[in-house]
Amino acid sequence: MPGCFIAFEGIDGSGKTTIARIVADRLRERRHDVVLTREPGGTAAGQKIRAVLLDGQFELSPETELLLMCADRAEHVSCVIRPALDAGSIVISDRYEGSTRAYQGHGLGLELALVDQVIGLATRGLVPDLTVLIDVDTTTAAERRSRDDTNVNILDLRDIGYRERVRDGFLSIAATEPAWRVIDGSGAVDNVASDALELVTQSIATRLTLR
Amino acid sequence: MPGCFIAFEGIDGSGKTTIARIVADRLRERRHDVVLTREPGGTAAGQKIRAVLLDGQFELSPETELLLMCADRAEHVSCVIRPALDAGSIVISDRYEGSTRAYQGHGLGLELALVDQVIGLATRGLVPDLTVLIDVDTTTAAERRSRDDTNVNILDLRDIGYRERVRDGFLSIAATEPAWRVIDGSGAVDNVASDALELVTQSIATRLTLR
Repeated sequence: MPGCFIAFEGIDGSGKTTIARIVADRLRERRHDVVLTREPGGTAAGQKIRAVLLDGQFELSPETELLLMCADRAEHVSCVIRPALDAGSIVISDRYEGSTRAYQGHGLGLELALVDQVIGLATRGLVPDLTVLIDVDTTTAAERRSRDDTNVNILDLRDIGYRERVRDGFLSIAATEPAWRVIDGSGAVDNVASDALELVTQSIATRLTLR
Repeated sequence: MPGCFIAFEGIDGSGKTTIARIVADRLRERRHDVVLTREPGGTAAGQKIRAVLLDGQFELSPETELLLMCADRAEHVSCVIRPALDAGSIVISDRYEGSTRAYQGHGLGLELALVDQVIGLATRGLVPDLTVLIDVDTTTAAERRSRDDTNVNILDLRDIGYRERVRDGFLSIAATEPAWRVIDGSGAVDNVASDALELVTQSIATRLTLR
């Protein structure tokens, strides 16, 4: 596959969306062709799915939440990510499979092997060349989210134990996956973005060398 | 589990929705507590999912279709079917897991073992006490559907080869599953309903005896 696939992960309030956008902008300034996208909701069908997941109208079972997240991902991979990679673009996704493993696996307690099976079906084995985990503690994240109340969704309302499990889940995945890197997201945005850009640039360079 | 769980299956135009309704009415006349429900769309969240699946606005990948169908089912099982069975009701569902195996497995060609895995997650192993397959040939079904054009959905527009594979898929499932029965759906509605009611009554009686 000619392109390069980068995912940003982290709990809500980690700053990953902002960082992903800055990194995409910097790469575009360097004349890279960048597709910046997100999950859930990176496709037209995905936006409808996202609404079911996040609008708080429904109390979904953990299994339903997992299957909807993966339905969104299957559509995202097939309609957006794979075509962009085939066209040689750099794809930057704000969340990908790591979020499902952390939120529905570690957070909601669904069996991890089962979660991985469903993810495998949705992605057909497509994994990022690099996943950047922007790590902040849950207190910092909650403070940031409370300042931005236009963006609060149902997942923010879950208890602190849940959010701790998700953060710890992300860190444990990062500790075992060779293509994950962790960045401290508690500092100034410019510094975090600069760290992230360095990792992404290295990954793109490696990919170009391998070609 | 105290209740009794019956599923009706068949291709669009087989008459299964009509038959399921008649059977439910007859059982209610006999003072049974009956919950008549359907897939996709048997819950509030499921209705939103059904709209994504069937409104024709989106060309979903086979994987997305499978995952959405099973997300709908997970919600249906957890919010409607299990609670009703626990309360001792007779649950009659217009479509259940057989439809996913026939449409997304046999029809779209997704690997059957994979389809079964996702179904297992959605249902957590809940299988009907009886599945009644209302079988008609695809020509008869298409004629019936063309008379009822208020109800046409995106699945009706798929080619005849697809619909043949779905019908054959249903028949091959019925041939191997001990709790499935096949009824010829080409005759008069009253006769088909009477055949179906007899099977359902036997199943309820067996279930009561086992209790």
